[in-house]
Amino acid sequence: MKHIVILGSTGSIGASTLDIVSRFPDHFAILGLTAGTNDEKLEQQIRTFHPRVVALSSETAAQRLRARLTNHPVEILSGEKGLCTVASAPDSDLVISAIVGGSGLMPTMAAIRAGRAVALANKEPMVMAGQMMQEEAHKQGKRIFPIDSEHSAVFQSLEGHRKQDVRRIMLTASGGPFWNWSVDQMKHVTPDQALQHPNWKMGAKITIDSATMMNKGLEVIEARWLFDVPPNQIEMVIHRESIIHSLVEYCDGSVIAQLGFPDMRTPIAYALNYPERISLEPPLLDLGKIGNLTFYPSDFEKFPCSKLAYEALEGGGGLPATLNAANEIAVQAFLNNEIAFLDISRLIRDTMNAYTPHALTTIEDALEIDRWAREKASVLVKAFTK
Amino acid sequence: MKHIVILGSTGSIGASTLDIVSRFPDHFAILGLTAGTNDEKLEQQIRTFHPRVVALSSETAAQRLRARLTNHPVEILSGEKGLCTVASAPDSDLVISAIVGGSGLMPTMAAIRAGRAVALANKEPMVMAGQMMQEEAHKQGKRIFPIDSEHSAVFQSLEGHRKQDVRRIMLTASGGPFWNWSVDQMKHVTPDQALQHPNWKMGAKITIDSATMMNKGLEVIEARWLFDVPPNQIEMVIHRESIIHSLVEYCDGSVIAQLGFPDMRTPIAYALNYPERISLEPPLLDLGKIGNLTFYPSDFEKFPCSKLAYEALEGGGGLPATLNAANEIAVQAFLNNEIAFLDISRLIRDTMNAYTPHALTTIEDALEIDRWAREKASVLVKAFTK
Repeated sequence: MKHIVILGSTGSIGASTLDIVSRFPDHFAILGLTAGTNDEKLEQQIRTFHPRVVALSSETAAQRLRARLTNHPVEILSGEKGLCTVASAPDSDLVISAIVGGSGLMPTMAAIRAGRAVALANKEPMVMAGQMMQEEAHKQGKRIFPIDSEHSAVFQSLEGHRKQDVRRIMLTASGGPFWNWSVDQMKHVTPDQALQHPNWKMGAKITIDSATMMNKGLEVIEARWLFDVPPNQIEMVIHRESIIHSLVEYCDGSVIAQLGFPDMRTPIAYALNYPERISLEPPLLDLGKIGNLTFYPSDFEKFPCSKLAYEALEGGGGLPATLNAANEIAVQAFLNNEIAFLDISRLIRDTMNAYTPHALTTIEDALEIDRWAREKASVLVKAFTK
Repeated sequence: MKHIVILGSTGSIGASTLDIVSRFPDHFAILGLTAGTNDEKLEQQIRTFHPRVVALSSETAAQRLRARLTNHPVEILSGEKGLCTVASAPDSDLVISAIVGGSGLMPTMAAIRAGRAVALANKEPMVMAGQMMQEEAHKQGKRIFPIDSEHSAVFQSLEGHRKQDVRRIMLTASGGPFWNWSVDQMKHVTPDQALQHPNWKMGAKITIDSATMMNKGLEVIEARWLFDVPPNQIEMVIHRESIIHSLVEYCDGSVIAQLGFPDMRTPIAYALNYPERISLEPPLLDLGKIGNLTFYPSDFEKFPCSKLAYEALEGGGGLPATLNAANEIAVQAFLNNEIAFLDISRLIRDTMNAYTPHALTTIEDALEIDRWAREKASVLVKAFTK
């Protein structure tokens, strides 16, 4: 029996994780859950999965929940401190980190520092402070497992093969809904259009990131730290069908890849029960029926966000955290109809240009840069406001 | 330094193996070589790689070679006994088994019985006596490594993953030159047409086997014994570009695959230096440039040879050996312009129909069935003669 904590249980990854847990009650038990403000959904999850402790970011949401669960044997915490307490709860075997955006950093780091094995579904903490997270995990003798489908594919394609033989990691990208649009066509993209992902059903933030291809940029940074591979050995390729989830090329010309239907339950289950696989028994992958797997080179000119990610990695220090924070502000502004689709990358670049190199030695440094960049980007939004 | 024996050194796989050995003289040394009748090519190889012992199947070829190498410090043996002596030569670290057809069985078995690690490029021995070979290898505590690109792909896709989680093996097939021809069109196929393989440059026997898709059938049988997976979990799918060399599907929906340009040096090098890879550094696999990977269901009606292989596995006993022997006779008869392309499968089926179940407990049983089936098929050839 594995005891699981889910940070961000009311989101898309949280729901898929709980779906697997509910199907394998002999394998998994829920020890802790956290959410942001959605106390109603969290209440349902508490009544179904009986965690020992939960936390909500919002104090008022936590108060509402406490009022409704007075006789229920669950401890209800709140705020970042509450989230960190759940993240580091004793006796958990695995912490699923699935809080959207940079606010996942502190709870995830709390889990790592408490010596927990962590499975990362959100890439932002790694983008902000990947090196520190890995150093801490090594110190604790624990591995950080990826849940992102691409990184799970890379992880699985590295298993059983020698790290020193790796020549190149190839992250596949669906290309999002605009991969074959011209820059001119993209000028008038609406949030509704950008929220139509061709292959994956995901949250709003990551769906917009897919449309700008910032998602792939963030994944390059995540891969750099997860797998300790230099950026010039990490590439991206457009793969329309999202069947090949990513590939690892070795020095002898062999390329190992992980494939499957786009279903987040597969990488979640792999992380949940590693090294044993769970018999999810989804439909067989019928390549004869699928017929075609198509690929295109990625285009930095049309999708500058992915290029910005490489520049952030090259610049190092707090530049990836700056990129990440500016992107969160820009995506929100776009979803709020404040800025245009093409302004997302411009806003990020302007914020990165305003960044002056800082030492990045503690998590607090990363959070400080994150705060600064959010503020800066929020000010810059006004310059782009439609 | 690994000391290598190559059985069948003058063939296509032998030449590719020696190409790798010559490029990595600090890694590999040639201890023994064998050939059939080509004493001239073997002489060149002896002068370049200085093996301690060699053998030729043909006694007259061996006599010619001895006459030319009187002062050369190499022992020159002949006949099946000579081949077996080289196969089991002391101090070799790996025996590459690359003799075309069923005549590879005895030398390969000699190597296994002598406790050598064996890398199999020829599939016929496994088809004839796979279970016995594996039992002997287990007894010796040695592994049999595949060199066939499909089986190397499966082997690499199993490394680092749990055998009990395997749901299905998918062998890819280029489909050969006639994959989209109608049966009517295939009536008048000439040997020259059948020898035009779209992706791989290989010997004549295996190229014809690719055109009839018997090659994939033999691979199913080989996979059944190499990986100890039941036939109903081994499938084939047409993949025109031969970039994905094969795939393994796991119970959670993950499919692990090995990809690469069609170049036999990659699987040879993997088997030669397992578990370390050799830096062959071939061109990068540029999927964006390749653009398309296409797949079609395999068609047992149009390519009955592949179906016969499943029937042979199901029938068990000496039926796979019968299939294999009849196929060798049929392919040779087709290459000699004695029978038509479509008669290859008919001849094999008729030979299989004539088979009466035999116990298959020793290699001698397999060889006896092989002899019987060759004789039977040779007689049946006359019924089909054009």
